[in-house]
Amino acid sequence: MSGTAGQVIRCKAAVAWEAGKPLVIEEVEVAPPQKNEVRLKILFTSLCHTDVYFWEAKGQTPLFPRIFGHEAGGIVESVGEGVTDLQPGDHVLPVFTGECKECPHCHSEESNMCDLLRINTDRGVMINDGQSRFSIKGKPIYHFVGTSTFSEYTVTHVGCVAKINPAAPLDKVCVLSCGISTGFGATVNVAKPKKGQSVAIFGLGAVGLAAAEGARVSGASRIIGVDLNPSRFNEAKKFGVTEFVNPKDYDKPVQQVIADMTNGGVDRSVECTGSVQAMISAFECVHDGWGVAVLVGVPNKDDAFKTHPMNLLNERTLKGTFFGNYKPRSDLPSVVEKYMNKELEVEKFITHTVPFSEINKAFDLMLAGESIRCIIRMDG
Amino acid sequence: MSGTAGQVIRCKAAVAWEAGKPLVIEEVEVAPPQKNEVRLKILFTSLCHTDVYFWEAKGQTPLFPRIFGHEAGGIVESVGEGVTDLQPGDHVLPVFTGECKECPHCHSEESNMCDLLRINTDRGVMINDGQSRFSIKGKPIYHFVGTSTFSEYTVTHVGCVAKINPAAPLDKVCVLSCGISTGFGATVNVAKPKKGQSVAIFGLGAVGLAAAEGARVSGASRIIGVDLNPSRFNEAKKFGVTEFVNPKDYDKPVQQVIADMTNGGVDRSVECTGSVQAMISAFECVHDGWGVAVLVGVPNKDDAFKTHPMNLLNERTLKGTFFGNYKPRSDLPSVVEKYMNKELEVEKFITHTVPFSEINKAFDLMLAGESIRCIIRMDG
Ligand SMILES: NC(=O)c1ccc[n+]([C@@H]2O[C@H](COP(=O)([O-])OP(=O)(O)OC[C@H]3O[C@@H](n4cnc5c(N)ncnc54)[C@H](O)[C@@H]3O)[C@@H](O)[C@H]2O)c1
Ligand SMILES: NC(=O)c1ccc[n+]([C@@H]2O[C@H](COP(=O)([O-])OP(=O)(O)OC[C@H]3O[C@@H](n4cnc5c(N)ncnc54)[C@H](O)[C@@H]3O)[C@@H](O)[C@H]2O)c1
Ligand SMILES: [Zn+2]
Ligand SMILES: [Zn+2]
Ligand SMILES: [Zn+2]
Ligand SMILES: [Zn+2]
Repeated sequence: MSGTAGQVIRCKAAVAWEAGKPLVIEEVEVAPPQKNEVRLKILFTSLCHTDVYFWEAKGQTPLFPRIFGHEAGGIVESVGEGVTDLQPGDHVLPVFTGECKECPHCHSEESNMCDLLRINTDRGVMINDGQSRFSIKGKPIYHFVGTSTFSEYTVTHVGCVAKINPAAPLDKVCVLSCGISTGFGATVNVAKPKKGQSVAIFGLGAVGLAAAEGARVSGASRIIGVDLNPSRFNEAKKFGVTEFVNPKDYDKPVQQVIADMTNGGVDRSVECTGSVQAMISAFECVHDGWGVAVLVGVPNKDDAFKTHPMNLLNERTLKGTFFGNYKPRSDLPSVVEKYMNKELEVEKFITHTVPFSEINKAFDLMLAGESIRCIIRMDG
Repeated sequence: MSGTAGQVIRCKAAVAWEAGKPLVIEEVEVAPPQKNEVRLKILFTSLCHTDVYFWEAKGQTPLFPRIFGHEAGGIVESVGEGVTDLQPGDHVLPVFTGECKECPHCHSEESNMCDLLRINTDRGVMINDGQSRFSIKGKPIYHFVGTSTFSEYTVTHVGCVAKINPAAPLDKVCVLSCGISTGFGATVNVAKPKKGQSVAIFGLGAVGLAAAEGARVSGASRIIGVDLNPSRFNEAKKFGVTEFVNPKDYDKPVQQVIADMTNGGVDRSVECTGSVQAMISAFECVHDGWGVAVLVGVPNKDDAFKTHPMNLLNERTLKGTFFGNYKPRSDLPSVVEKYMNKELEVEKFITHTVPFSEINKAFDLMLAGESIRCIIRMDG
């Protein structure tokens, strides 16, 4: 047990006081973990689009002041009552979605959408007592998706923490706690291309590039990258993308362009854009008889996915996935091992690093579309 | 070799001279099989909805005079050049879709949509020479889906013929050559419910009842039958259906009714109606995380399948299937074996039998919704 166990910890956190306003590094109080909770010392965190969306709070119920952050690596500082799986000193990745190991989803081999700990972007408190563990001079600061990693210390539910190999460099594998695993898992766990098959990836952001990495690792023969932004294409080559299609360059629908390039359609497609039009194209561009399309992007509230049912009857498969179908506690440690075995490359996703004091730079880089992942060093 | 090999055979056939008019038993000439063709003596045939649709020819290009029929059992009379897989005397089921064993679909483990022999309802001739093998006084009579089993003798492509166990009673297993295999295969090959899971079946016609039989054989714990016609419910109990839902009995959408009955949704659903509304309900009624919905019904030309993409992202799977994903030559013999081993019951699908001379009665029974399957005995 560390000397701080059971005590309130005072540390630095980047607090979002208002939607869209730069974060402010403040001294916060972090209460001890309660039943089934753990307190983590965060060493590295990175910025994901989801942080930016909820920080901008466009079209969402704003919840401020709040501590964002959900892609990170850290070390267990202390554990609350009933926690037996983790102990102080364990190296961990906190995850925005959890695994209680007791609900029907956790018992299902196929699902990772835990009933108890499924992502909830509206909740800013812990489920044990409906309170926040963060405060500034006694006034509560809200949590974000159960992780709030933009703080030197944070408290999470034990079900939202994956214990990983302590030899894994946390400044690299921290990016596996959200976007990279989402895209990689969408390909290797859900689309499951066979060696030599063709794969189309819609959207070449971090998630799409990770999906391409999954296709490369699976031995895909052709990886067709689709994006409206031609500047994404050069970067994408590092991720195994062999051909590029910009829908804007053609008069015909992109699904037709891809069918023409591939003698009837690709074997697999993975949509990583959030655009419902791209979702439809990603589905319709797979080959009849055996094609599988996987949706990853988060759509708008009023979007409708629309296709002719014959496209389905002709033996295509359409699926969606959440966090690459990984169960955070059961499966994430093995994704880290893939990195350790050099099966999966993560360095190429990390384009920038900033000290914690300059966390707002990470926001600027993402908003300018310049970074894939920017690591924030908590010791800086 | 039989004495008729290489000769034109004169025999009886039920000819459809005009859309929607009763068939007329005529004496026809059946030419010998050409390259990669076989000539079959049909012993039993049954009537399927697809025959009725194309006989009614509503909204389709009418092709008359034509010999309908595609669910049947028979014996090989003679074979054309290049046929090595079959010989006279073999017991066979002709199938409306074929398996060339050479195209990418036939090579794929997943597809049964052969490029060469995929169903073509507009073609009334053989692919070898673009001619018909049937004539009356020299005037050609068109084929139907490559089978035309409403004739004592017919000619088919060798790829559209499954050689089966000669001990199998053809008057029973003939129904496995279309609808029953379609529904049964949709469940066991595509939806693949696990023992103890719940399954919803939309549409309790022959195809849906066969899908229910597939669920029963798979050990489903609950089989929920959905139909707008309450008279289908009593019959359905014989096929393992445990509960019935008539969408007309509720104010809320049927997918909501089913979710409420099953704590969030069924594990599997199989749609066998052809109604696009039922397709959408069948998809939306499966449980998030692991639910799989399978579409079988043939939709209308202008139908659109429409759902919110979040229904997919929540880890549901949507698939379509054609002929239950069975490859006719490779897989159908083992379906016949399932019947022989008493794993699959076919007798309960056979509600009526008529002699060939009364074939129009089979149409009347189907149009009145009184039959599931009516066997037509060619010797009668
Ligand atoms: N399902 C999950 O668990 C999960 C987890 C993380 C992120 N996501 C979602 O994945 C998506 C991608 O995330 P990201 O961080 O990589 O985003 P990103 O914004 O970095 O990348 C998206 C890319 O898609 C491209 N794009 C947009 N519309 C397109 C269209 N119609 N056709 C082709 N390309 C198009 C954009 O130009 C951009 O390059 C987002 O919708 C995000 O919300 C889902
Ligand atoms: N995919 C294939 O390979 C294949 C092969 C054969 C038949 N089919 C198709 O399968 C479907 C079923 O064939 P069948 O011979 O059993 O037909 P059928 O007409 O005997 O049965 C269909 C049943 O669906 C019910 N129904 C219609 N609309 C409904 C709705 N909205 N909700 C609930 N129930 C509804 C009807 O009352 C009827 O009982 C048809 O569309 C047929 O074309 C497909
Ligand atoms: Zn759970
Ligand atoms: Zn994220
Ligand atoms: Zn073929
Ligand atoms: Zn049929």
